[in-house]
Amino acid sequence: MTKVDLNSDLGESFGAYTLGMDEQVLEAISSCNIACGFHAGDPAVMERTVRLALKNNTAIGAHPGLPDLTGFGRRNMAVTPKEVYTMMVYQIGALAAFVRAEGGRMQHVKPHGALYNMAAVDEKLAEAAAEAVYKVDPELIFFGLAGSWMIKKAERIGLKTAQEVFADRTYQKDGTLTPRRQPGAMIANEDAALAQVLGMVKDGTVKTLEGDVISITADTICVHGDGEKALLFTRRIREELTAEGVAITAFV
Amino acid sequence: MTKVDLNSDLGESFGAYTLGMDEQVLEAISSCNIACGFHAGDPAVMERTVRLALKNNTAIGAHPGLPDLTGFGRRNMAVTPKEVYTMMVYQIGALAAFVRAEGGRMQHVKPHGALYNMAAVDEKLAEAAAEAVYKVDPELIFFGLAGSWMIKKAERIGLKTAQEVFADRTYQKDGTLTPRRQPGAMIANEDAALAQVLGMVKDGTVKTLEGDVISITADTICVHGDGEKALLFTRRIREELTAEGVAITAFV
Amino acid sequence: MTKVDLNSDLGESFGAYTLGMDEQVLEAISSCNIACGFHAGDPAVMERTVRLALKNNTAIGAHPGLPDLTGFGRRNMAVTPKEVYTMMVYQIGALAAFVRAEGGRMQHVKPHGALYNMAAVDEKLAEAAAEAVYKVDPELIFFGLAGSWMIKKAERIGLKTAQEVFADRTYQKDGTLTPRRQPGAMIANEDAALAQVLGMVKDGTVKTLEGDVISITADTICVHGDGEKALLFTRRIREELTAEGVAITAFV
Amino acid sequence: MTKVDLNSDLGESFGAYTLGMDEQVLEAISSCNIACGFHAGDPAVMERTVRLALKNNTAIGAHPGLPDLTGFGRRNMAVTPKEVYTMMVYQIGALAAFVRAEGGRMQHVKPHGALYNMAAVDEKLAEAAAEAVYKVDPELIFFGLAGSWMIKKAERIGLKTAQEVFADRTYQKDGTLTPRRQPGAMIANEDAALAQVLGMVKDGTVKTLEGDVISITADTICVHGDGEKALLFTRRIREELTAEGVAITAFV
Repeated sequence: MTKVDLNSDLGESFGAYTLGMDEQVLEAISSCNIACGFHAGDPAVMERTVRLALKNNTAIGAHPGLPDLTGFGRRNMAVTPKEVYTMMVYQIGALAAFVRAEGGRMQHVKPHGALYNMAAVDEKLAEAAAEAVYKVDPELIFFGLAGSWMIKKAERIGLKTAQEVFADRTYQKDGTLTPRRQPGAMIANEDAALAQVLGMVKDGTVKTLEGDVISITADTICVHGDGEKALLFTRRIREELTAEGVAITAFV
Repeated sequence: MTKVDLNSDLGESFGAYTLGMDEQVLEAISSCNIACGFHAGDPAVMERTVRLALKNNTAIGAHPGLPDLTGFGRRNMAVTPKEVYTMMVYQIGALAAFVRAEGGRMQHVKPHGALYNMAAVDEKLAEAAAEAVYKVDPELIFFGLAGSWMIKKAERIGLKTAQEVFADRTYQKDGTLTPRRQPGAMIANEDAALAQVLGMVKDGTVKTLEGDVISITADTICVHGDGEKALLFTRRIREELTAEGVAITAFV
Repeated sequence: MTKVDLNSDLGESFGAYTLGMDEQVLEAISSCNIACGFHAGDPAVMERTVRLALKNNTAIGAHPGLPDLTGFGRRNMAVTPKEVYTMMVYQIGALAAFVRAEGGRMQHVKPHGALYNMAAVDEKLAEAAAEAVYKVDPELIFFGLAGSWMIKKAERIGLKTAQEVFADRTYQKDGTLTPRRQPGAMIANEDAALAQVLGMVKDGTVKTLEGDVISITADTICVHGDGEKALLFTRRIREELTAEGVAITAFV
Repeated sequence: MTKVDLNSDLGESFGAYTLGMDEQVLEAISSCNIACGFHAGDPAVMERTVRLALKNNTAIGAHPGLPDLTGFGRRNMAVTPKEVYTMMVYQIGALAAFVRAEGGRMQHVKPHGALYNMAAVDEKLAEAAAEAVYKVDPELIFFGLAGSWMIKKAERIGLKTAQEVFADRTYQKDGTLTPRRQPGAMIANEDAALAQVLGMVKDGTVKTLEGDVISITADTICVHGDGEKALLFTRRIREELTAEGVAITAFV
């Protein structure tokens, strides 16, 4: 039976600030990526989110980001591989402690925002990121952009990986996402986005912006819960996949 | 054979800022407390300090502090027990990941500065601190002020503890340290400080500021390496204890 | 004609996080206190809020807080008078620059949260806070708790002051607010809160929790816009005061 | 008479961390750039440094940087022109308040580190930086890399500028500095560095790494005080320039 994981970013609230519809989105997904305090989240939010995920039997991953709270970790920074390594070890460890304190077990690590984007295209940053995950716990699964340096480096190091695909982004001939600033980067039409997801999951292919059909591995799909609309689309993805006989399930 | 542990705060540098003579003090002590990024330290400093400690066979502890980098974690803050719990789980986990990444094993946790002082006298904060340590790893040793709430609560929870004493601070009738702002709080004379240490370690007693002799448990002595003078005194404590037949040793 | 100022805290969003209904509450108030980046707010939010206030002809004040973003500046910290002075000069200056850049003029300064509460009851912190305002610009008006050390010290230094009163808090015999953790601290009933406001503004008196009637100066009333309910009550305060012939107006 | 300004970065300490030999270098320079809390410095350090500069009659400038304390503002970040504008207004205002509180007057603004480097080569960031200075106070002098976008944009906006040159860096044909990661970027030999300075100041020319002689405007020279060696070289630059009849003087 075909199966796929649905993952979403959670625990992005901070102090007095609330962000995301964590409780609702948890019911639709199989894995969650919890912010670790650098780009979002704080110790209290992390604890609360870990408990919530465990209660929902959702697999837990660390979601380490750049040290840029003001920019929500979305601004590229000229960090060195060593800096990527240490900031990831730190954040993975912090989240792991909350999971352990609640008697759970961490499933995966997925870099956030600009850290994810930079590691996807930079061989050395990708290696440093994978190394951080491996050194903290070689059993963790590395979530990275399908076909990117993150996946290649993680596999070479000996980590299990989950290749991530996106419903609402278009792909280029080389398998990378069309940069957001370019025209045609986003798929606004939900039916088209859904069709792309089904094609990636069931056939292992995606039609690029240029019109070519390329092969892609879809182990996990990134979905959102940061608003009513996003939540509804996430539910729809789940329903259609299920209707097509695809099992929604985490990796452990 | 009588034995005692010598502990010192390490890894207090941050970014471009260097603090402390970590390499030199490591040779004199048996346990080190490594800052975890809230009051001092950053991921790169933590990694470097963990490696340094492992190379020196010095036992490693986490040194979590209040989220107050500007104040170096020395300013009391009205934090709740829940906040103490979560900020400690976070920081212990972050350091634990660096220790694990280097193939080491963490020995203990010692709260820093204002967090230490507040937990020493506040039953609920002490309990929250001990709970955080226990939940992350029940094998960790809790370092706390000798005879304080920290020790009592940690023992009740089931943690091993190390009662900490100070060479250069005077004690009051109830076993607490004379607050720094009161006259007679500090022992400036090194011979007197040394005599106090020897008495605490060998006889289990200390003469209070008021002149009474009270009993005290000295499992570990807090020493310093933040300057030439401090370093020299730390070495002298080590030499005199050794000359008196006391073994300087960590707990694991 | 009797007049009074209505002030509210604004610009408390931060990065990706939105807080408060700034646009709506601006229409009901005469003065706003804009967060300066320590407990809330960031440079982009400050600029946006200053422009919004100027567009609404609302008088602008700086709202400096403790350096505690996680705690929203609501946790007391053991800061020295010197630290209060420097953190206030810094934050007032930062906001003043945005006001100047937009061609406006800052009216006042109101300390936030724990900084406000501590300065209200601590003579030295109150003096340091007033000194900071005076040194940056002696024409600024100091907003402080009616009858508190803040008002006394600001007046002694030569600052103009605005004594602030609260609709939804009860007062004690000595004119201070009943601490939130004590029973009867809050006035949940809106009619009672409104009656208290009218009494303070029109008669200069308030009935304390103990039942005594004491005199109080109400130059400005603190109102809220952090939710639908708060906003509605703010509008109601404005309407009732206007109906009673009280003019709602800022000081410059 | 030929004259030139000597500027150095000051006030880079933070909390418990001390950096730089501010008192000694102040005696050798005519202008100082004071860190504003984003990449270095804190309110207490800023106040102390402003007082020190005023005591030494050294002209004061703000030294705003990227919000990256861990990286000391040296890591490029993908910030937008709007973000550059607001972060500069904020920091300039904060420092201006300390200068005003001490009865002084700010002379200039010089972006720090990665912010300086990015604005030098990015037309839009340069414009945003100049705009920030102009909007806060059109009388401020903009310090920027000689011949760069910073100078061009500041002049177009109507700001006075000071073109900055470096003693220990080589120049390329187009007048930009050789990037640090390229061979030949630094001039290690002090005599050669000194000769370059004298040529730039007296003749308005510099020999590029490729061997061409190009014209350059040297209004101010960047010197250092972050160590014994740097301090000695700064003194030597001052002495040699004076011996050559060049007056060391600020702009106001």
